[in-house]
Amino acid sequence: MYPIETLQSKIQQAFRDLILPDRPAELYDPIRYTLDLGGKRLRPFLVLASCDMFGGKIEDAVHPALGIELFHNFTLLHDDLMDQAPLRRGKETVYKKWNSNIAILAGDTIFALANREILKTNIEAVQGISDLFNITAIEVCEGQQLDMNFELRKEVTLPEYIEMIRLKTAVLLAASLKIGAMIAGASEEKSKAIYDFGISTGIGFQIMDDLLDVYGTEEKFGKKPGGDILAAKKTYLYLKALQLSDRNDAARLVSVYESGELPAVEKIETVRALFNRVQIEDITRNEIDTYWKNAVRIIHSLKLPENQILPLMEYCSKLMERDY
Amino acid sequence: MYPIETLQSKIQQAFRDLILPDRPAELYDPIRYTLDLGGKRLRPFLVLASCDMFGGKIEDAVHPALGIELFHNFTLLHDDLMDQAPLRRGKETVYKKWNSNIAILAGDTIFALANREILKTNIEAVQGISDLFNITAIEVCEGQQLDMNFELRKEVTLPEYIEMIRLKTAVLLAASLKIGAMIAGASEEKSKAIYDFGISTGIGFQIMDDLLDVYGTEEKFGKKPGGDILAAKKTYLYLKALQLSDRNDAARLVSVYESGELPAVEKIETVRALFNRVQIEDITRNEIDTYWKNAVRIIHSLKLPENQILPLMEYCSKLMERDY
Repeated sequence: MYPIETLQSKIQQAFRDLILPDRPAELYDPIRYTLDLGGKRLRPFLVLASCDMFGGKIEDAVHPALGIELFHNFTLLHDDLMDQAPLRRGKETVYKKWNSNIAILAGDTIFALANREILKTNIEAVQGISDLFNITAIEVCEGQQLDMNFELRKEVTLPEYIEMIRLKTAVLLAASLKIGAMIAGASEEKSKAIYDFGISTGIGFQIMDDLLDVYGTEEKFGKKPGGDILAAKKTYLYLKALQLSDRNDAARLVSVYESGELPAVEKIETVRALFNRVQIEDITRNEIDTYWKNAVRIIHSLKLPENQILPLMEYCSKLMERDY
Repeated sequence: MYPIETLQSKIQQAFRDLILPDRPAELYDPIRYTLDLGGKRLRPFLVLASCDMFGGKIEDAVHPALGIELFHNFTLLHDDLMDQAPLRRGKETVYKKWNSNIAILAGDTIFALANREILKTNIEAVQGISDLFNITAIEVCEGQQLDMNFELRKEVTLPEYIEMIRLKTAVLLAASLKIGAMIAGASEEKSKAIYDFGISTGIGFQIMDDLLDVYGTEEKFGKKPGGDILAAKKTYLYLKALQLSDRNDAARLVSVYESGELPAVEKIETVRALFNRVQIEDITRNEIDTYWKNAVRIIHSLKLPENQILPLMEYCSKLMERDY
């Protein structure tokens, strides 16, 4: 098994090896800018770790891994435009720095570049992984559409929310893992299992993100907490708190959350106090734990030697702040 | 060889067989609306006709042909948003009927759907045609970027214009033909030749479109002529007329073309009069003829029996209003 750092350096190398044309500069400058913003490179890591875990050749997985990360960057680029988000990783978003048309077209181009990278693997895997990749792309679009719908809806149920984050976040993590398995020639049963591991981890991971926005520190979260509250995002914590609060507190929570009356700090504090009344932090940690335990159960069902699952599990358990 | 009508009905059937989910309706309603707008279905015809001409199985080409047309519809959807075009085939464009975010996301989804259809062919062809498809997608984006750049630039040379329409229009026609050839297992040399045929035909076809905007009838052109003049589009006719006019007429042409002072009918008439002074209609028809003759030369270089090239040539020569 390759250690985590080796897999990560292979991803960095793949990014350095990616040659983009210079012109038209109006198209390729924003693409370079987007790819240089960096990030955890979580998804390509999952492709490589899964391929390695199932005994595949890493060389066959490096380009598809890069393709997955390109796709992820494409979705961020278009999402930031749709959400009118001014900043991404502390820097101006493409539509802000350039304009909307550039953001649309640079995104489209990155998606096509991603598809090209996906194809660069062994011939037996190509058709299957490229199809899974594009099915997943469609699901991610559906998830973004549901997310936009929820902004305009008064009521969203918890199962609806879980379905939205499954589509918007979890399926891409799951597909990354399954693509690694398919490149390694893993059986359908094993490929499906690692996909399900990714779904459970991905949903847990997104709920963790919701949690850190309320109870995390800027250092740990990577951005200023409270953003979801200020944007009145219907997160797991908000929807669960509404369910658990008594009628008065629930009404108060809706009115504080939805209105823009209170100053930022006060709004965050008030919402946090209402969350605390129903022990939302513990409840959310339990929920994350349930998703993570399910993921651990799935990976153990593969009955692979412990050392074979080590890099993937070390990485994921660190992400989830959990043991396995 | 299948007759033109048979190939066309196979394309219609493929569209009818395309099953889209119902939900989220906000995503799939605009996609259905876009695909129902219709059109000539020129590009999928080229895929099928080329595959048939090179002795391939039409069944292997139907899905990739559909994929190419889906991609074409995706580019129209995003282009209409970028160009802020209110109408497409006499109906409201998606961003007008719904909104910009829906247009972005519906477009992204159609591109992913297109990629899935491209993969549905014989395993030997998949990697090659999917890569060509995405290379072409990138080139079409580059062409759209150049087109947007030209809107803001004062001077554009004729070679720059030809390069822009090569990327924005011709490469997709050429790739359609080459994909048909690749599915049929044609040699690289033959696949390249049919690609070059498509480039020459495609450039001629776009210059014809420029011509019909000035000298065509609404019946023939399918839309009201004069649109390019009113939008001050730097077309082949405009750039060539500038090159051929004396200093005074050229200055006059620029000032009339660029300013929004004159009423529509008068502007169109004045520009047409300036075009007439340098015989732009004849010159443009000659230019189209040169591209078409080059295409005919290429197709004959394949040395295929006359009956084998008949459906493709009948269709293309009709498009170009030329014999072969």
